[in-house]
Amino acid sequence: MNTRAISGRLIEALGDDVVTVDTDGIAPWLTDWRGIYKGQAQAVVRPRNVEQVSRCLALCQEAGVPVVPRGGNTGLCGGATPDASPSNVVLSLDRMNAVRTLDTVANTLVAEAGCILGNLRRAAHDAGRLLPLSLAAEDSCQIGGNLATNAGGVNVVRYGMTRELVLGIEAVLPTGEVFHGLRALRKDNTGYDLKQLLIGSEGTLGVITAASLRLLPRADVRAVVLAPVESADQALQLFELLYGQCGARLQAFEFFTGACVDLVLAHAEGVQEPFAQRYPAYVLVELADTADEHALAALLEDVMGRALERDLCLDAAVSASLAQLQALWRLREEISEAQRADGPHLKHDISLPIEHIPAFMASCAQRLHAAGGDVRPFIFGHFGDGNLHYNLSRPAGAPTDWAALHGEPLTAEIMDEVMRYGGSISAEHGIGQLKREYFHRYKDPLELRLMRDIKRLLDPAGIMNPGKLL
Amino acid sequence: MNTRAISGRLIEALGDDVVTVDTDGIAPWLTDWRGIYKGQAQAVVRPRNVEQVSRCLALCQEAGVPVVPRGGNTGLCGGATPDASPSNVVLSLDRMNAVRTLDTVANTLVAEAGCILGNLRRAAHDAGRLLPLSLAAEDSCQIGGNLATNAGGVNVVRYGMTRELVLGIEAVLPTGEVFHGLRALRKDNTGYDLKQLLIGSEGTLGVITAASLRLLPRADVRAVVLAPVESADQALQLFELLYGQCGARLQAFEFFTGACVDLVLAHAEGVQEPFAQRYPAYVLVELADTADEHALAALLEDVMGRALERDLCLDAAVSASLAQLQALWRLREEISEAQRADGPHLKHDISLPIEHIPAFMASCAQRLHAAGGDVRPFIFGHFGDGNLHYNLSRPAGAPTDWAALHGEPLTAEIMDEVMRYGGSISAEHGIGQLKREYFHRYKDPLELRLMRDIKRLLDPAGIMNPGKLL
Repeated sequence: MNTRAISGRLIEALGDDVVTVDTDGIAPWLTDWRGIYKGQAQAVVRPRNVEQVSRCLALCQEAGVPVVPRGGNTGLCGGATPDASPSNVVLSLDRMNAVRTLDTVANTLVAEAGCILGNLRRAAHDAGRLLPLSLAAEDSCQIGGNLATNAGGVNVVRYGMTRELVLGIEAVLPTGEVFHGLRALRKDNTGYDLKQLLIGSEGTLGVITAASLRLLPRADVRAVVLAPVESADQALQLFELLYGQCGARLQAFEFFTGACVDLVLAHAEGVQEPFAQRYPAYVLVELADTADEHALAALLEDVMGRALERDLCLDAAVSASLAQLQALWRLREEISEAQRADGPHLKHDISLPIEHIPAFMASCAQRLHAAGGDVRPFIFGHFGDGNLHYNLSRPAGAPTDWAALHGEPLTAEIMDEVMRYGGSISAEHGIGQLKREYFHRYKDPLELRLMRDIKRLLDPAGIMNPGKLL
Repeated sequence: MNTRAISGRLIEALGDDVVTVDTDGIAPWLTDWRGIYKGQAQAVVRPRNVEQVSRCLALCQEAGVPVVPRGGNTGLCGGATPDASPSNVVLSLDRMNAVRTLDTVANTLVAEAGCILGNLRRAAHDAGRLLPLSLAAEDSCQIGGNLATNAGGVNVVRYGMTRELVLGIEAVLPTGEVFHGLRALRKDNTGYDLKQLLIGSEGTLGVITAASLRLLPRADVRAVVLAPVESADQALQLFELLYGQCGARLQAFEFFTGACVDLVLAHAEGVQEPFAQRYPAYVLVELADTADEHALAALLEDVMGRALERDLCLDAAVSASLAQLQALWRLREEISEAQRADGPHLKHDISLPIEHIPAFMASCAQRLHAAGGDVRPFIFGHFGDGNLHYNLSRPAGAPTDWAALHGEPLTAEIMDEVMRYGGSISAEHGIGQLKREYFHRYKDPLELRLMRDIKRLLDPAGIMNPGKLL
């Protein structure tokens, strides 16, 4: 069958309110939100239920037509953007957005793939429970995309990645077969845990249509401290102390350099200078507990007192009110937006064995210097997880197309240095289109071969999200 | 090649201190510890390093000889016991028992497969960290076996199953290829998470030789309460309250019937009657925190006070000392041994959506009654995870071979009832030989097909642990 003839068959099978084929209707679905990637498609399919997803995939597999699953389109690696083939069918899950169950006895939430993460978090909160997955895009990303990319975020140090919150999934395989794995059991040792293959597979093995997620106890009492440090090494020692002393309460351990603070103060409105002087770097720590604000604040005061005594930080500003807490967080949260306002730049979402971060930061800076760039690094991230956003902005005075023209060799230096320390070229953003070349260069050949074998097994016609990951 | 000729080649390749072929030397490796299963083997191989494991598997694959990986032999489903084929090679990991690294900055422990779980727990504790996997067999089970079976235990309600503690693995595939996945990264979104296939695969896909595990903050301050309840439904309501109020401190929520207490008092020495009267059932709750014993005890007193006010339990005995805490725990811990002392019985390690436990317990009791048994049920387990050990002992006065002669139809009734409620026929023990028939009967055909496909992909010669799981 002509691959373009699929549009007619999809409309016939699913109706023209589900299948869009006109150029204007398709146009908004062809780019990522940053505008870096642009592709083509012959149709956009927006199913209302799992049966429609199944029929769509069965028809596409029969015709050998590529399918690009799409969630909230908040990814940073182009994983949900179609490639240049005009045959592509974009499959958006946005209409499958029902919460099927929310149970505070079972502590589970069963949600369809198109549910907005922030809405799920609020639904859990209102029911007296916590869905701990939290990230900058939470009010536009969809839970299906979070699972497909194994999303991370700011509370991974306490609650783990998306994968660790998933009890079961419903998914449609490329054949159109429905995987009925929407179990909500905390323990189920009956064979290989197949859902793990789909989680983090970036839409290359099938389409997740719903998930059963663990809910945790709410931890509404919070305490935050901003602690300047002279180096990543000092931050590391501070982390070791806090991890042991604060126990499960430690839910964020963020790091950013003084340059990031300069950038935020230059671009974000209403953000306050945190101390009387600028320090080389800062650590932002958040503790949270179910109750007893006083005890939590006392714990934080106590442990930061010990940190200061032991020279594990240079100062400490502890939040004394919700307004102060939010003001401290803004210093961290505004970095991405401030860097965007500063102009095009290079994003590197990397992770390292946490104990090697100081050495990596020193040697990577040397390599970049040797590579001749007077580039401006803005380094921040989820330090407690070993996860840095090692971003580079153009040299002062350089034209705004500098990153596009000169970025690649610097990215190559950073990726190579990450691998030298046994790190990962993608901590939480995934591979998508952006990091495919580095993924193929650095991944162990045995692992690559096994991944390709599994891809062939589940997607024999090779229709799922071509040009991404593998 | 004659499959029996492999012994000579193994000795040639690995030496006769690694390979045992004489009948007396092999004999201790042919049974499970309960003495239910007995198999045959031509050789026992006890490698000292991953290279030797690799050579063993490569040779066995070439010769088409079945390999049965073996850890501490504490499993309850016969998963590490060879089948009746005289060709089997038993591969014991007991000599690979080094702790490669233990890092309190990275909070990781890299241990070889043969390490005894209890030793790893003590090593972590001495370093100021917690390895939270804890189960009855911890002083004889090996961490490799824990991973291969995705072991559970008493603290899953807080820390999750073994799978959730694993950051990376080193494994040997049936081809002899070494999977170098011993990463210790908290975040690494670079392709399919292949290690998940081996975790819980019961030795059917390859041999895990080492693991990188997460360490948690120590939580040495503990508080325990024993609360009698009139029903599973009341236990469920109590769980809902405690889960929300105690947050991450809730690390055990165990359940057992009054009959279990009778059994323990009859068979275990030095165990005290906990209350002035026998109640229908009991809940044992443990909270733990990093510090402040007084605050933890006050929290437990407070929340149990509210529970009594709301009629969520019938009484409450809170531990006021370590001795009391241990005495309360003995009521739960001695159940298995007391049932063993009572004679042969039927073990059923099942899980249910927790909200359905009360209905399941009522209807399952009816089914067993209708099936004509005046069997004695001893029901206990990790209620907070939805995990029950729904064990049956012979009717009073029946001969001790009753379970062997009459058990199967009753097991079939229970398994069927579990499936009717969307539960699992194996919560934490796995499938092994014991539950293979039920696994094949109840598992979704699509999942079974995918598991077989993956098995063929990783183990094309079908040498790994035949007769187990698939």
